[in-house]
Amino acid sequence: MTERTSLLLTDLYQLTMLQAYFDQGMADTAVFEFFVRKLPSGRNFLMAAGLEQVLDFLEDLRFTPAELDWLTGCGRFHRRFVDSLRDLRFTGEVQAMPEGTVFFADEPILRVVAPLPQAQLVETRIINLLQFQTMVASKAARVRLAAADKLLVDFGLRRAHGAEAGLLSARASYLAGFDGTSTVLAGMNWGIPLYGTMAHSFIQVHDGEVDAFEHFARSYPKACTLLINTFDTEAAARRLVPLAKKLAGEGITIQAVRLDSGDLAAHARQVRRILDEGGLPGISIFASGNLDEHRLAELVAAGAPINGFGVGTRMNTSADQPYLDCAYKLQEYAGLARRKQSEGKATWPGRKQVYRSYGADGLMTGDVLTTTDDVAPGEPLLVPVMRQGRRLANMPVLNAVREHAHAELARLPVPLRALAPATAPYCVTLAPPLRQLAEEVDRRIQADLIMRKSRCQQTA
Amino acid sequence: MTERTSLLLTDLYQLTMLQAYFDQGMADTAVFEFFVRKLPSGRNFLMAAGLEQVLDFLEDLRFTPAELDWLTGCGRFHRRFVDSLRDLRFTGEVQAMPEGTVFFADEPILRVVAPLPQAQLVETRIINLLQFQTMVASKAARVRLAAADKLLVDFGLRRAHGAEAGLLSARASYLAGFDGTSTVLAGMNWGIPLYGTMAHSFIQVHDGEVDAFEHFARSYPKACTLLINTFDTEAAARRLVPLAKKLAGEGITIQAVRLDSGDLAAHARQVRRILDEGGLPGISIFASGNLDEHRLAELVAAGAPINGFGVGTRMNTSADQPYLDCAYKLQEYAGLARRKQSEGKATWPGRKQVYRSYGADGLMTGDVLTTTDDVAPGEPLLVPVMRQGRRLANMPVLNAVREHAHAELARLPVPLRALAPATAPYCVTLAPPLRQLAEEVDRRIQADLIMRKSRCQQTA
Repeated sequence: MTERTSLLLTDLYQLTMLQAYFDQGMADTAVFEFFVRKLPSGRNFLMAAGLEQVLDFLEDLRFTPAELDWLTGCGRFHRRFVDSLRDLRFTGEVQAMPEGTVFFADEPILRVVAPLPQAQLVETRIINLLQFQTMVASKAARVRLAAADKLLVDFGLRRAHGAEAGLLSARASYLAGFDGTSTVLAGMNWGIPLYGTMAHSFIQVHDGEVDAFEHFARSYPKACTLLINTFDTEAAARRLVPLAKKLAGEGITIQAVRLDSGDLAAHARQVRRILDEGGLPGISIFASGNLDEHRLAELVAAGAPINGFGVGTRMNTSADQPYLDCAYKLQEYAGLARRKQSEGKATWPGRKQVYRSYGADGLMTGDVLTTTDDVAPGEPLLVPVMRQGRRLANMPVLNAVREHAHAELARLPVPLRALAPATAPYCVTLAPPLRQLAEEVDRRIQADLIMRKSRCQQTA
Repeated sequence: MTERTSLLLTDLYQLTMLQAYFDQGMADTAVFEFFVRKLPSGRNFLMAAGLEQVLDFLEDLRFTPAELDWLTGCGRFHRRFVDSLRDLRFTGEVQAMPEGTVFFADEPILRVVAPLPQAQLVETRIINLLQFQTMVASKAARVRLAAADKLLVDFGLRRAHGAEAGLLSARASYLAGFDGTSTVLAGMNWGIPLYGTMAHSFIQVHDGEVDAFEHFARSYPKACTLLINTFDTEAAARRLVPLAKKLAGEGITIQAVRLDSGDLAAHARQVRRILDEGGLPGISIFASGNLDEHRLAELVAAGAPINGFGVGTRMNTSADQPYLDCAYKLQEYAGLARRKQSEGKATWPGRKQVYRSYGADGLMTGDVLTTTDDVAPGEPLLVPVMRQGRRLANMPVLNAVREHAHAELARLPVPLRALAPATAPYCVTLAPPLRQLAEEVDRRIQADLIMRKSRCQQTA
């Protein structure tokens, strides 16, 4: 549903590695997994998102003639290799956690099994898609937990990092529990409910606030939200009372007012009193302006009479944690498990599954991370989503994903739902078969090194 | 050069305001300016970027038939209004600071002068384009200042916020002084020099590091960069020495090695020693991994023998400051200056110009912010870039922009080039005519309110 992105939106090394594989005839089956190395500081959980766009990308994967021409002319690749890219398609399989699933550090949320060149080429864009939506959904889930049952609208398009970030953050935040967005294209693409108010400029181009309010209300007689903080918030609320009554006589309804600056709780209380005393208890109060989960929790705790919130920049950019420490790493090639041993960046090898257990109260009690050959108690979280390059028919629609996310938050252990870090983090156990596999891989790498060292010494 | 973005990638309120303007017949000339309210915490300056994409957007501005159909069917807009959008084009003018120009809080970097509906509709996307590239260029300029003359390559596509963020951050960082990027599409679109190394997976699919190094070098005999931290960095460097000599005998050159984990300065020193002692002083050392301007400054200060850096996530997401406190605000409508008075968000009214002065040493000494009717000493920074909806012919190409940015950094007062906040911030003076205009606007708003209040009381 999003626009197709050029396959050249990738790192140069993907293409140079592919040519080296081509030169060496290396095209056995490779297995890569995407996971987050550790939870962002202060966070208790993450929420998987972005799978739908990854599958779109894999299904549509191909080089255009213009891209192939550019590769031919750029001086880095030989013609036989570029020719081999002409018919390149993604023919592999994908297993993944459904979008909206809660997950933790080291747990793979997506596995790609495909011929090496395909599985390697897709790395950059898969990370680019999965990390962003997962980051935003994880942040938005916190905002939802803080907001209790208040209306939540994504207002962040303008300060999102470019077009796709704006569009996909509308999707990711809706998935995680927002009620809608102001981003029109997200409404057109996915049917996400749209919300909007008015800008200060609308007030300013009129000679007075009351004229602006009246004009807007007449254009939207069934429901409109009026912005009342351009000059003096309470004065605007007082001026609104006679106008709202006059318009009501003509069947025109003012639905809400919006506050956008100053002490939102104090303004909301005064505006609520003015509207109530003016006989307008039906006009609700909507607030925006530099909000995040912490600010929302304060406003909710203070009992501020605010019915809904527009949350933008700090949610869409995940401002406190604007990236995840995530990776898409080789786990197996040509039937052998593989492992990276770099300092601080070592990975668990092989194809993995996550099994999740629940208590009698339905809350999550712990996960087991193990190899796919092993079976552990609990529910396996990674499921097949693509075979032979085609997505399976059972992919959920966005509203079903949103319901799943909602259910996941309800299954979170209570301390993990708090904004503050839980004293005891969620328990993810590494099963013995996975530890054994890691040791086997280490032994094999060590044996390789010793063998090569002795060969080296013999030839030296 | 980037893909056209749907005009529905906007906030709903832009369209609802447009319909209200249509209903009221309000289409006089409006003037909006984009500016940053205050510098991000700890920063000494910002660098303007993104103008080229804004002009692309304005020149191509139109609704497609599918978008118009959706607007008709969505239930919020009447047919006469949607019909009026069919022929909507941007016919206004734009003045702006050239990309690469250093600027400060409250200084407009772009002004749009157009019929109200056009000038309003473009708000969301203009902010979305200008804030992102300006944010990245400003961060990348700091990285460049910290890196002295080391090679700097953008590695951030994978963790950028979506496709456009990845692509445009390659452009913004190049503009601000990076030497190139790993993002292939940025090479194709703008001719930005491309750099790449290899991934750990390339090592891991081979049975040993030396095989992997040799295969890669044979595919890129003129120049290749080998990643040496997959298992043990120094051991890899030692194994590389005999291989490099063997390959050199066949005319194959290894250009560089890459470090990507651990204590980069310590590894670089040891690897440099191993390579030098092995008779390979020509192989340079390239480092990557969680780098930003502070880390780079440390490595440079420590004299680490590193020739170049790959800087990714923290630069592309501007991780310490992932958004700017920026706005696109109405300054004038129908010939009258306008001003927002909201608490903490008041704006300076009217069309403005920035005049910059320089000392005898060529360094910037201070700016004056004033009305366009006024003339102050110094060089005016905003220049015409678009008239009647068409860009002017004299727009600089990207390499010229990059040279301008380089010259700007060289003209920065020395304390502002430091990473730490300067004790004395750069001096931006508000000229008396601008203060007078603000007072006039305030008096007009006040008079309006009093007049309306008395009208209200008469009718109450």
